[in-house]
Amino acid sequence: MAKSWKSKLHEIIYEADTPAGKLFDIVLLILILASIALVMLESVDEFRLKHGKFLDIAEWVITILFSIEYIARIISIRKPSRYIFSFYGVIDFLSTIPKYLSLFIVGSQSLIALRALRLMRVFRILKLTRYIGESNNIMRALRASRIKIGVFIMFILILCTILGSIMYLIESNEESGFTSIPRSIYWAIVTLTTVGYGDIAPLTPLGQSIASIIMILGYGIIAVPTGIVTAELASMEKDDIQLNTLSCSNCATEGHRNGAEYCFDCGEPLHPEETD
Amino acid sequence: MAKSWKSKLHEIIYEADTPAGKLFDIVLLILILASIALVMLESVDEFRLKHGKFLDIAEWVITILFSIEYIARIISIRKPSRYIFSFYGVIDFLSTIPKYLSLFIVGSQSLIALRALRLMRVFRILKLTRYIGESNNIMRALRASRIKIGVFIMFILILCTILGSIMYLIESNEESGFTSIPRSIYWAIVTLTTVGYGDIAPLTPLGQSIASIIMILGYGIIAVPTGIVTAELASMEKDDIQLNTLSCSNCATEGHRNGAEYCFDCGEPLHPEETD
Amino acid sequence: MAKSWKSKLHEIIYEADTPAGKLFDIVLLILILASIALVMLESVDEFRLKHGKFLDIAEWVITILFSIEYIARIISIRKPSRYIFSFYGVIDFLSTIPKYLSLFIVGSQSLIALRALRLMRVFRILKLTRYIGESNNIMRALRASRIKIGVFIMFILILCTILGSIMYLIESNEESGFTSIPRSIYWAIVTLTTVGYGDIAPLTPLGQSIASIIMILGYGIIAVPTGIVTAELASMEKDDIQLNTLSCSNCATEGHRNGAEYCFDCGEPLHPEETD
Amino acid sequence: MAKSWKSKLHEIIYEADTPAGKLFDIVLLILILASIALVMLESVDEFRLKHGKFLDIAEWVITILFSIEYIARIISIRKPSRYIFSFYGVIDFLSTIPKYLSLFIVGSQSLIALRALRLMRVFRILKLTRYIGESNNIMRALRASRIKIGVFIMFILILCTILGSIMYLIESNEESGFTSIPRSIYWAIVTLTTVGYGDIAPLTPLGQSIASIIMILGYGIIAVPTGIVTAELASMEKDDIQLNTLSCSNCATEGHRNGAEYCFDCGEPLHPEETD
Repeated sequence: MAKSWKSKLHEIIYEADTPAGKLFDIVLLILILASIALVMLESVDEFRLKHGKFLDIAEWVITILFSIEYIARIISIRKPSRYIFSFYGVIDFLSTIPKYLSLFIVGSQSLIALRALRLMRVFRILKLTRYIGESNNIMRALRASRIKIGVFIMFILILCTILGSIMYLIESNEESGFTSIPRSIYWAIVTLTTVGYGDIAPLTPLGQSIASIIMILGYGIIAVPTGIVTAELASMEKDDIQLNTLSCSNCATEGHRNGAEYCFDCGEPLHPEETD
Repeated sequence: MAKSWKSKLHEIIYEADTPAGKLFDIVLLILILASIALVMLESVDEFRLKHGKFLDIAEWVITILFSIEYIARIISIRKPSRYIFSFYGVIDFLSTIPKYLSLFIVGSQSLIALRALRLMRVFRILKLTRYIGESNNIMRALRASRIKIGVFIMFILILCTILGSIMYLIESNEESGFTSIPRSIYWAIVTLTTVGYGDIAPLTPLGQSIASIIMILGYGIIAVPTGIVTAELASMEKDDIQLNTLSCSNCATEGHRNGAEYCFDCGEPLHPEETD
Repeated sequence: MAKSWKSKLHEIIYEADTPAGKLFDIVLLILILASIALVMLESVDEFRLKHGKFLDIAEWVITILFSIEYIARIISIRKPSRYIFSFYGVIDFLSTIPKYLSLFIVGSQSLIALRALRLMRVFRILKLTRYIGESNNIMRALRASRIKIGVFIMFILILCTILGSIMYLIESNEESGFTSIPRSIYWAIVTLTTVGYGDIAPLTPLGQSIASIIMILGYGIIAVPTGIVTAELASMEKDDIQLNTLSCSNCATEGHRNGAEYCFDCGEPLHPEETD
Repeated sequence: MAKSWKSKLHEIIYEADTPAGKLFDIVLLILILASIALVMLESVDEFRLKHGKFLDIAEWVITILFSIEYIARIISIRKPSRYIFSFYGVIDFLSTIPKYLSLFIVGSQSLIALRALRLMRVFRILKLTRYIGESNNIMRALRASRIKIGVFIMFILILCTILGSIMYLIESNEESGFTSIPRSIYWAIVTLTTVGYGDIAPLTPLGQSIASIIMILGYGIIAVPTGIVTAELASMEKDDIQLNTLSCSNCATEGHRNGAEYCFDCGEPLHPEETD
């Protein structure tokens, strides 16, 4: 069966099982990493001043290659809108357009840093999620506990707002950097998460006492997300890994090991049609 | 049955099941968030200087609305003292009064930051505790281990007092900021909880050695709160899972092992119809 | 039976079951907390300059009371050496002697900070270990895994020595504070434990790259102490809380619940001699 | 049987069961620790200026002893290349050569810090891995989850690259230190791992908001490595505990559930004498 060039192109770009598809993926991966390297080098002042010419040419090469890929993706798909407005479609657009914009708008060049977003495609190309996904208890545990984690984060934010406001009251007359409530909230988050930059730090004894309470609080409640994930993991392990929910047709015993062929309690076959 | 206007008001303010009650909750939630936003904006110097007039008017609008709510809550409840001296009653009062005080006492305006405390009502309005509470193992684990956590925190505080005092002895002649024992204790807490601001840091080799010990200690004993919560969680899971909810028909004892055929307490068969 | 005054004194000081013993413990607890408060206040310069006279008198009162306690403890015990060279005996001596020394040796006054060590007696007086100890799985888990934790700490120290030496090689020419290998090792500990003061921080790209590796390493291997403690806890729970090692004399089934009187599998009494 | 001096030397150097072998190990351990202490002292400026002569002589003594050990190791082994290109062989070479190089090349002296790498031999001499290894669940858990941990680290790095690039866009015009994308990525790692030096810190409200998100993210996803290790540990425990070590007398299958009466694979009774 002869395929149209469009469906061939689709196979190469969107699928990874053919040799051509695999080659495309590898070339794309290298291009993405090279483009990120370029963006990084360009942001280093000394390098840009020395090798500005080379960087500009390399940027244009990468941009044109990405543009070709972008157009090829649109052409080869049946419903272009499905790609264009997809997560990766938007990222591909955002990482290609700044170089063209820089021809018309001064300063838009720096938007090229958005190209780092293309790194996310690494997960898709390398199918990294598979490695986690194969025994994807962690992912499922995170998904199953997303409401709890969301409420936990909201709790943290409300706590930091309250504590930040109180610290603003106490420290606002000092030289300690608590110049506004948003800054104080930022400080509370920095402290509660045990990051502790030190750009803002309490100077009054009362402020330091409250800061100590926040620190011990933050040191302690790190047990909560860990506990949520671990508890979810433990209940999953219990549910579906070791024992299945099969019931013996002879004695109705449950709790058989996965892969068990015979009932451990009465010795009857568990899957009569299969053992025939 | 005709209701008095007081009981209708009570239904709207204190209950959330009627449409009017739900509407009241939503309006209150928006008002609280708006009032917090106002307080934050006012604390930013640039914004206050530009939009001082607008902020002042908006503050008064919010304050009057909160005052009406406060009075309505007092009128519509049978025993006003139960609301006034309740947790939320005190918070509502503290977040309404500073604006009035600012008319008489210069400087009391900044107390308006206490309004952030009203954020706690968010938990009640959104019934956020329900989401954690539905499978509230974490909450139960925290409650069950509150004495252990309390002793752990007391242990941390005593440890920091001792280590802070020793560091004061060692570093007090240096320019490192260990100017008093309370400050040294504050530093010990900052270090043990791995926050590490850097506003106070040891300079002598001996001080740095002891600081290193505190850090490794703090890095290690973070396992303790995590361990306490996880252990409590694990033993809860075990209660629910390893033992079933069967009650012996003879002696009514509960807590039998899954798979048990006879009551562990009186020896009667647990499943008479099956053992027949 | 008439007791000698010595044995009465011993009962009051060393035991806590009589009313007099309890009173003594409470008075001692208050005295210790007061003495710590004094030491803290004295270390604050502003306070010492204002209230130096009061502090000096209060110090002498506390010191004399502690001296009386120390002598009473020696007199009332049969073998004084057992107390004098015990852990608490040494601490009591160290926290009493500096005030006397200050009469002869200038500067020894600051050793009074050692009095903070007396805080450890709080654990004994309040019997705080009981609260952890009652369900003392955490303590037993820590004790059972002390070799593993020791090896882990040694591993951390060796790792920090190696990484610190390498960082000294890379950053020694910069203004970043890596002035000697011991300082670099101190920095490696500060970084690996995620404390991060910022008093020493790499400036070269290579140094920052290695620092990044250390940070991610430190962020990841915090799972190891947590894992050690949790694993130990889990195996303990499994061992001795839910099921015992009893074997039924009739059907030899094992895995009975603690407290079980009858075999869950055949219904025979598990403890024939007891049920007789 | 008379042994050649080569095989005797091999026994002393490479084995630890004979008295001579044990003595060699102890002497070597002391020499390594002494050499590390020397390197540390030499890096401290004040000490080197005072005791430069002594340090130089001691360095040469250590270097010559290490050279003798190195040559002895090469001579006494059958295939010298197996030692020379082994992990420890390379380390031994790297820690011996800098002193000789310093005779010819100025500045190579500082490479002597590489000697810290010899500390790794401590693990071998003290057989420290045995203590972890005896109940080596942690090690097995780390090994079993190395792919997941690798993917997790790659995820962290990609996340930091993206977040660092975005922060560079936002903060590049400020005095906050985000001077290039690599530096911004370094900052993102410092923040996500909750180290928080504070040498680079956001100054704009938008930058601080994104920094807050990164901090809460870092505070939360520390649960992931802990969860991975704990889950792996738990499933290991389960393998040992929930399944027994019985082997079916008919088909030799292992891994039966505790309490199983019949083989789950072939249906034969597992305990023929009991079922009779």
